[in-house]
Amino acid sequence: MSIENKKSAKPDARSKLLEAALSVIRMKGYTATTVDDLCKAAGVTKGAFFHHFSSKENLAVAAADFWSETTGAFFENASFHSPEDPLDRVLAYLDFRKAILQGEMAEVTCLVGTMVQEVHDTSPVIRDACNRSITGHAGTLVADIAEAAELYGATLPGGAEGLALHTQAVIQGAFVLAKAGNDVRLAANSIDHLKRYVELLFGRT
Amino acid sequence: MSIENKKSAKPDARSKLLEAALSVIRMKGYTATTVDDLCKAAGVTKGAFFHHFSSKENLAVAAADFWSETTGAFFENASFHSPEDPLDRVLAYLDFRKAILQGEMAEVTCLVGTMVQEVHDTSPVIRDACNRSITGHAGTLVADIAEAAELYGATLPGGAEGLALHTQAVIQGAFVLAKAGNDVRLAANSIDHLKRYVELLFGRT
Repeated sequence: MSIENKKSAKPDARSKLLEAALSVIRMKGYTATTVDDLCKAAGVTKGAFFHHFSSKENLAVAAADFWSETTGAFFENASFHSPEDPLDRVLAYLDFRKAILQGEMAEVTCLVGTMVQEVHDTSPVIRDACNRSITGHAGTLVADIAEAAELYGATLPGGAEGLALHTQAVIQGAFVLAKAGNDVRLAANSIDHLKRYVELLFGRT
Repeated sequence: MSIENKKSAKPDARSKLLEAALSVIRMKGYTATTVDDLCKAAGVTKGAFFHHFSSKENLAVAAADFWSETTGAFFENASFHSPEDPLDRVLAYLDFRKAILQGEMAEVTCLVGTMVQEVHDTSPVIRDACNRSITGHAGTLVADIAEAAELYGATLPGGAEGLALHTQAVIQGAFVLAKAGNDVRLAANSIDHLKRYVELLFGRT
């Protein structure tokens, strides 16, 4: 995309389209979301869309990366990092994940977990962007889990990485059951069980 | 649908279409799957499709119910029911879920977990059919879990039903991560963690 083209577009159309993607795709799914849907939700023209993105698939990859950035900043600035004990930080993370289960399904659930269910076979580039997002977020938990394992002498199946990925699998699965039951709060059941598991694994009673 | 109409259709076209739905929808997602895709995969005409199903949505509801029936029979006839100890049966169920993580992603993963991610907001009838399937399967585990809790004096967060639903959330989430990483075997990590959790919860070391 040339600099000339960039000048002609509204400066924030790209961000508006990415924000719209987060909301519309989580509500309708990736395939059902059209370029027109995204333009309408973002309040931008189709010309602006194709100025910034070569295709809907290209937008979806950018949306997954944008999701990683925005949720990354959100979790980085959250209060669960403050406890001194690393196990307390891990448990506080789970409490936080439970506490934010409030609002509309499409606001609470995960863009990349939703998209990857649909396109895992048909769009390797979107799938890989979703994987980067999930494993990247899991990666932010590894240091605390590893420090807690050392402090408490806990043996973790699959190591700190394995447990970090498991926390994300549980949260993704909790969203599937919440969607099936049409109630965001249903996801809390599995986060409670996950917290209990972490407590038992580290010998915290 | 009248008896006259039924006579004119091939006797097994409906089953062929349902089998095709299981395979094509798990591969491409619900929205991306067209009636033409399903007819082609089933080797039936479009007339046969609309003889049996009023719409793609109607077929998806039938496919979710068909999924419940076929997987229900599959799990009912599996060997994990044979141990005398109810906790051994629950653990054998988890071993079985891990053992069947072999083959293509679309053969191994869950139809209803996939569909509900897409249509939870846009198709209440499909969503509810998916929910019946997931909660129905969870329900088959409740008696063993409750018996084990009594035998081992274990206190379960959310009761036997809560743990049964949690096992399904973990398996659904394990599939999401497996799809993201494009490797069926990635789902094993969370089943290992789930088994460890059940062992810890019931005091089995």
